[in-house]
Amino acid sequence: MSRLLLNCDIGESFGAWRMGLDAEVMPFIDCANIACGFHASDPSIMRRTVALAVAHQVRIGAHPAYPDLVGFGRRSMACSPQEIEDMLLYQIGALEGICRAEGTQVSYVKPHGAMYNDMMRNPDSLRAVMQAVARYNPELPLMLMSTRDNSASQRLADEIGIKLWFEVFADRAYDAAGMLVSRAKPGAVHHKAETIVKQATDLATGTALTAEDGSSLQLRADTLCVHGDNAGSIAAVQQIRAALKALPA
Amino acid sequence: MSRLLLNCDIGESFGAWRMGLDAEVMPFIDCANIACGFHASDPSIMRRTVALAVAHQVRIGAHPAYPDLVGFGRRSMACSPQEIEDMLLYQIGALEGICRAEGTQVSYVKPHGAMYNDMMRNPDSLRAVMQAVARYNPELPLMLMSTRDNSASQRLADEIGIKLWFEVFADRAYDAAGMLVSRAKPGAVHHKAETIVKQATDLATGTALTAEDGSSLQLRADTLCVHGDNAGSIAAVQQIRAALKALPA
Amino acid sequence: MSRLLLNCDIGESFGAWRMGLDAEVMPFIDCANIACGFHASDPSIMRRTVALAVAHQVRIGAHPAYPDLVGFGRRSMACSPQEIEDMLLYQIGALEGICRAEGTQVSYVKPHGAMYNDMMRNPDSLRAVMQAVARYNPELPLMLMSTRDNSASQRLADEIGIKLWFEVFADRAYDAAGMLVSRAKPGAVHHKAETIVKQATDLATGTALTAEDGSSLQLRADTLCVHGDNAGSIAAVQQIRAALKALPA
Amino acid sequence: MSRLLLNCDIGESFGAWRMGLDAEVMPFIDCANIACGFHASDPSIMRRTVALAVAHQVRIGAHPAYPDLVGFGRRSMACSPQEIEDMLLYQIGALEGICRAEGTQVSYVKPHGAMYNDMMRNPDSLRAVMQAVARYNPELPLMLMSTRDNSASQRLADEIGIKLWFEVFADRAYDAAGMLVSRAKPGAVHHKAETIVKQATDLATGTALTAEDGSSLQLRADTLCVHGDNAGSIAAVQQIRAALKALPA
Repeated sequence: MSRLLLNCDIGESFGAWRMGLDAEVMPFIDCANIACGFHASDPSIMRRTVALAVAHQVRIGAHPAYPDLVGFGRRSMACSPQEIEDMLLYQIGALEGICRAEGTQVSYVKPHGAMYNDMMRNPDSLRAVMQAVARYNPELPLMLMSTRDNSASQRLADEIGIKLWFEVFADRAYDAAGMLVSRAKPGAVHHKAETIVKQATDLATGTALTAEDGSSLQLRADTLCVHGDNAGSIAAVQQIRAALKALPA
Repeated sequence: MSRLLLNCDIGESFGAWRMGLDAEVMPFIDCANIACGFHASDPSIMRRTVALAVAHQVRIGAHPAYPDLVGFGRRSMACSPQEIEDMLLYQIGALEGICRAEGTQVSYVKPHGAMYNDMMRNPDSLRAVMQAVARYNPELPLMLMSTRDNSASQRLADEIGIKLWFEVFADRAYDAAGMLVSRAKPGAVHHKAETIVKQATDLATGTALTAEDGSSLQLRADTLCVHGDNAGSIAAVQQIRAALKALPA
Repeated sequence: MSRLLLNCDIGESFGAWRMGLDAEVMPFIDCANIACGFHASDPSIMRRTVALAVAHQVRIGAHPAYPDLVGFGRRSMACSPQEIEDMLLYQIGALEGICRAEGTQVSYVKPHGAMYNDMMRNPDSLRAVMQAVARYNPELPLMLMSTRDNSASQRLADEIGIKLWFEVFADRAYDAAGMLVSRAKPGAVHHKAETIVKQATDLATGTALTAEDGSSLQLRADTLCVHGDNAGSIAAVQQIRAALKALPA
Repeated sequence: MSRLLLNCDIGESFGAWRMGLDAEVMPFIDCANIACGFHASDPSIMRRTVALAVAHQVRIGAHPAYPDLVGFGRRSMACSPQEIEDMLLYQIGALEGICRAEGTQVSYVKPHGAMYNDMMRNPDSLRAVMQAVARYNPELPLMLMSTRDNSASQRLADEIGIKLWFEVFADRAYDAAGMLVSRAKPGAVHHKAETIVKQATDLATGTALTAEDGSSLQLRADTLCVHGDNAGSIAAVQQIRAALKALPA
């Protein structure tokens, strides 16, 4: 992979409820993290979302979550590793079923919300997620968060036999460990477009960031998380896309 | 296919609730119609059910349903053909995801409960079901009910390009049209083992049945529906299995 | 009741998903039909919706539905009368539980979507709805659709011992039987503000409407259905409210 | 309250799935903790369960839970205090709606499973539960677990203005703090009927128990948790009931 892939959560409507500007953001991204019905979406929304991704030649990723529609998958649940593994297999397969009807396939996996956070904190959860991917299809990369030291995750992935895509953020400040600064703190979220675009190009070119404490932070960056929630975030994605294109090859 | 396949609804537990004697009936059947989470089951129960089917070398079928857990998929819902097609793709794919982890695959599709009844009554629903199977994998046979005249279903399947497996019943009386006599009527359900076994062997050997009105009824019979609900139904399956084995090849 | 009450479906957000301009429409209505969690809403949205209604001194009605979140309660489901009665008791009670915490109470009942349509078509469903209201609290009026001849509904309500509020529409054409003209037909929905306001004031003053076939149509009108979906419908509600206020007492 | 009330989880079937021997245990208990649809049950099962409690003159308690049917409410979920408060109001009200139709009412509240455990560990959760009860009806006692030192819970209840019923267990060993010994440890669960009955009568008569470490443990005991899962637990309830009746008044 020679460049920073832009990934975006997509297809998070549900039944009669709309969420996100999917059609507006799709032209500018590389990877669509498509909700699989546990935190958002339903079979018919998944169908339309997959068709939209295909129309824009965007890679399709499964975006599985805890079974918590009303909480949008943002609430941690005390699920066992076996339950996590099984619910991932179910959700990846369900999306693949939809993909088949649109002549495409699932290309990677990125857990959503609380499941993503839990796998970054809890090695048993991470192992369960990795096992699910390995048992479903070990060729599918798993997206997880890049931190200063990714060696533990990488070792586990090597043991289990899957590939990792490390994800970075352009609109968030990092602490010295390479974790995101809590949103509760001032300066945690970048709002100025030029700051966001600068961080994106730094990440794309392997330039070290400056962490919250002033230390230099080198992050492995395979993919950058962008957002399609509203007009502002779409504009940011367009600027990031343009800036990345302008980089020397 | 040279013989009458025994199919049985399997894996209809849900969360903490148990239903059916899956382990007891699995050794005697050919085809396990496995619930996919919409009317029953959950990812972990699906995982254990698929493993059990693999252990007994039983073919795995997707048993999709309307999204109605509390009604066990038995209540007709006014879903559009597009909704039906999409919910089938989702459920078949979800089961396939589980199958992958157990080294197996989905081999056929049999809609459950109200969806099965609706597809037999409503050509738009039947077309939606067939489209889903064709778009998922046209090699997968669709189980549907055999009646006196299966030509309309067969023509539609030919047009769409899928295979059909016609299903028959050994424990139910038929009317002249080859439809099941309503359970509300006396004589609708056979309770004597010898009657059930006789009807099973007649169906397996291509012998005509006698319909409710005394007319002769010839039914195409690819697969016979059996039940694993309780000790009595398990005993019936065993007797049917033994009787079929004893038939001349 | 001396005047035409404006009722509006309210509180139809769900979890992270927003729907409707509840805060904008609430100042102009008399009766808020509050979703109870089966087709839309959740306990926390119900809490905020009830508080908003209390702040504007708007009567609170339970707006129960079939258990079909993904279909927004718009798909008919083959539920038994007993199931309908029980699911109404559950939903009315759930809303009342929320109301208690906000120092208020449920004042009436209006079934939602497919359940509303089904009760207008199917006497068994209507009886089940009425039984639920009678058993919950016979003082609560039930809203149902006014037609040319309301006598059958009224007789049933008298037998069961509940009160009815007959609902009319200002933005829809009526046929000779006093049923709404199908949306599939031209002229079924009024779009011009003056037509809508005129129909509202005619209904409020007991003036006969002209049905689709030119016949005169007298409708009992206790309450008028208005909408808070978007800016246009809010504007219509304001105009209707102003026109009703301007009527001689 | 002059005697030890026997409370039992009841009405935990769901849709087509059966759980528990409700009809068998109901004659021997004082308080039925009735599931409210979030971890188990549905409106029609609630209706039948309430009718059964009425027939046996058993007090009805709301048994609310996290929204986790597939996990039977046994998995902790990171719900906010506001969400907990609102989901309790919803569930208590829903059960009350069913009770009204059977001429009875909710008499107390006992959170289920993970919510019960979380409120015993997390003061914010406990406060949310108590607020819900206070806002619903401060006359309803809240059941929670009795420990060696109940003063913190009691102070919070006094501040919020609700009553507490402290719950004890006859079939579990206690540690020195008055917490249940983990089921993972040997001796955590009493299996001999005479041990269980002895612990029940000790608790009823205010006799101190012997904790795991040999220390004496005095527990406030308003209500004893019993089980209706299977024939063995029903027999235990009958023996406990008989032993309590035989105590001097």
